[in-house]
Amino acid sequence: MKTIVNRQIINQVIECSGLHTVGRATIREMVGIINAIELKTDVSFIRMEMGEPGLVPPKIGIQAEKAALKKEIVSQYPMIEGIASLKHEMSRFVKLFLDVTVAPKGCIPTNGNIQGGFASLFVACRRGEKNTTLFLDPGYPLYKQQLYVMGLPYKQFDVTNFRHEKLEEKLNAVCSSGQIGTIVYANPNNPAWICFTDRELEIIAQTANKYNIIIIEDLACIGMDFGKDISTPGQAPFQASVAKYTDNYILLFSASNMFSYAGQRIGCMVISDILYAGKFPGLTRFFPSDELGHAVVYGAMYALSAGVSHSAQHGFSAMLKAVNDGTLDFIRDLKTYENRSRKMKQIFLDNGFDLVYEHDADKPAMDGYYFCFSYPGFSGVELVEELLYYGISAISLFITGSERLEGVRACVSKVDTQKMKILESRLAKFNKHHSGNLADRTYKKY
Amino acid sequence: MKTIVNRQIINQVIECSGLHTVGRATIREMVGIINAIELKTDVSFIRMEMGEPGLVPPKIGIQAEKAALKKEIVSQYPMIEGIASLKHEMSRFVKLFLDVTVAPKGCIPTNGNIQGGFASLFVACRRGEKNTTLFLDPGYPLYKQQLYVMGLPYKQFDVTNFRHEKLEEKLNAVCSSGQIGTIVYANPNNPAWICFTDRELEIIAQTANKYNIIIIEDLACIGMDFGKDISTPGQAPFQASVAKYTDNYILLFSASNMFSYAGQRIGCMVISDILYAGKFPGLTRFFPSDELGHAVVYGAMYALSAGVSHSAQHGFSAMLKAVNDGTLDFIRDLKTYENRSRKMKQIFLDNGFDLVYEHDADKPAMDGYYFCFSYPGFSGVELVEELLYYGISAISLFITGSERLEGVRACVSKVDTQKMKILESRLAKFNKHHSGNLADRTYKKY
Repeated sequence: MKTIVNRQIINQVIECSGLHTVGRATIREMVGIINAIELKTDVSFIRMEMGEPGLVPPKIGIQAEKAALKKEIVSQYPMIEGIASLKHEMSRFVKLFLDVTVAPKGCIPTNGNIQGGFASLFVACRRGEKNTTLFLDPGYPLYKQQLYVMGLPYKQFDVTNFRHEKLEEKLNAVCSSGQIGTIVYANPNNPAWICFTDRELEIIAQTANKYNIIIIEDLACIGMDFGKDISTPGQAPFQASVAKYTDNYILLFSASNMFSYAGQRIGCMVISDILYAGKFPGLTRFFPSDELGHAVVYGAMYALSAGVSHSAQHGFSAMLKAVNDGTLDFIRDLKTYENRSRKMKQIFLDNGFDLVYEHDADKPAMDGYYFCFSYPGFSGVELVEELLYYGISAISLFITGSERLEGVRACVSKVDTQKMKILESRLAKFNKHHSGNLADRTYKKY
Repeated sequence: MKTIVNRQIINQVIECSGLHTVGRATIREMVGIINAIELKTDVSFIRMEMGEPGLVPPKIGIQAEKAALKKEIVSQYPMIEGIASLKHEMSRFVKLFLDVTVAPKGCIPTNGNIQGGFASLFVACRRGEKNTTLFLDPGYPLYKQQLYVMGLPYKQFDVTNFRHEKLEEKLNAVCSSGQIGTIVYANPNNPAWICFTDRELEIIAQTANKYNIIIIEDLACIGMDFGKDISTPGQAPFQASVAKYTDNYILLFSASNMFSYAGQRIGCMVISDILYAGKFPGLTRFFPSDELGHAVVYGAMYALSAGVSHSAQHGFSAMLKAVNDGTLDFIRDLKTYENRSRKMKQIFLDNGFDLVYEHDADKPAMDGYYFCFSYPGFSGVELVEELLYYGISAISLFITGSERLEGVRACVSKVDTQKMKILESRLAKFNKHHSGNLADRTYKKY
């Protein structure tokens, strides 16, 4: 049966990549593999492997960056703690869209959420004996890689099996050992696109207070839970956040998805006033101060880079100001993803695929940036590989800490109307080739 | 005796800073202290504490950044390994200005030399048992802070006491223990502004080969050894580098000083082809591969940030291309610093100060970005504090690993012609207040 892409070429590329199992590739490894296959063939893939923005960045950000590109700003090192306007606008944003009060001091520009996550984990996990991180999975694999390169331990469980009140018992069971020092998750969840309820966030917060745990909440996809319109500054509903219920938090924001601004690598971490001033004697083993905020800024961030790109800080600051002032609606454009997700899910369902994580607790899951799917008889790892032959790329849930090992994660960002038609015909072909022989397949658990 | 700045105000600021001894402050701590003092007084300091460019960045870089600020570049994540044009131009630059051949693959854009240093040390020091770094001091204090936050050990000695053939014996004595895995230094040296001779670089290289040590050579101030004009591409003299004599090297380049481009945080590390492909089984404890280059790019750099700012990469690439093509002379503008240094040294000498590291082995030290000075009867730590009352800021050699504890480092970059006159009158006042009472002073060794 003739596939879309020549099997031999793909197998060659996989062999050259040195990966034992292509279906377990990391996101960036998969990007590299698809780039290489596209170079060797004339097939343009339906690329769903990476959460990369596909929209037009706001003009106001680009204009502010261009205006900032003058001698005084280009030649001067940025302050490690960030430029004053970005700190101020981030503090305003958190008040207006989360209804949470944080001083500008605790709003620290980062080179994007990966740097924010690294600095947060590098400090939070090294306060003392509680050096283990707990991931509420499925989740973004890179945070685990960060702990791996730091040589720090982690635990995880698939939180979709412990929704509502079940979460409390599970968290107590894991955290009562006294090893857990940090809890990491994203809201909305990448890749399952579930959102914690206010009650669940309260449970997480209570756990943090009880066991002296720092919550690292990744808000990279803020506002993209389209079931709730948070777009009006200063008015409910607000973005749900653990910050409403505890002071033990670091929030991670990024311009990448909010403003389709991934190329410029700009984000901001937000540390609560009380946590910023918190004293942890164990920190002095690695940092110039026992104060957590000081250790983050002048210990971790200073060791990682002499500040964050000046022009990018000005761009992000200008976009946040417009959003805070109510002159830029950052949610409106993002709804493009909601429409795409709805259509793409239907195309997958029409061609013999099933949805994974189709429910957010007792409601249907929202449409947004990511969704997950499976095909009868395939593990997710197998399915990722098999889809390559049909010109479709994604990543397996295997690498996200999910227990749904049949699943594959798709990002909708690169699939516009034209690509959607191609996706449809490729999936139809895939289904035609595979629907008849289910009995022949052995589901291998990777 | 009336000083330039009110003693009480300075003492208040120092007290609020929480520093026990202001003369031991790090560079960025000193920046914060002077900013705070300037806010509370109407005194504009002669700021020499930080190596911050004071020249106009080349138009070609800013124009290239502005041109890059369009949808395709702003919205898309940069590849972790960097954009192709920057990798290509860096490879060309190393050939044309160092006479060293490296494939573009080994040229990896960084968020500046601090990130380049972090990633280099994070991998090079974690290959196995040889986890200790040796600093050929005096040097830039931040690299030591990086090892401190990583929890890794280091040794150091003041290399100015071991010039020429003495270096071989000293390096053998330190490295024969088998603990040293990396050697770090800058050429030209920050702060002593000495330059290793070709013979010394050869000795360092031989040590690296003999003991399997990786040399991390910081070339942030490339070309600013104005005794040798390296400005013609492809023609001798070339920038002296250890890369001529060994394959065990990582070179760190930055646009910050070369192009007065510090604000945009863009640099590039250069790993030799052989070291890039080198296999070290110990790396798999922390990284996805035992190949050093793969571990640096997809282990360390990927964990630190999802790539380096897209527009800054385009800006740096355009400036390097112009330099490589011979249409931009990056040395010419930098000579401003040479002139300033010569004049400033004279002003210090005329007012009772002495120069420290006034010789580069058996020649007078060159004039450049930094110089070091002392005042009779003062330790460097004391002198830094006392100069604050006269509106002059610098850092003590104490924090650079120097054995010249009477010394203070000055950066010339912010002292233009107008500031130079103010410096002269303030130093005269300082000298008037202190020259008579030398006998009263007790030189305290901090």
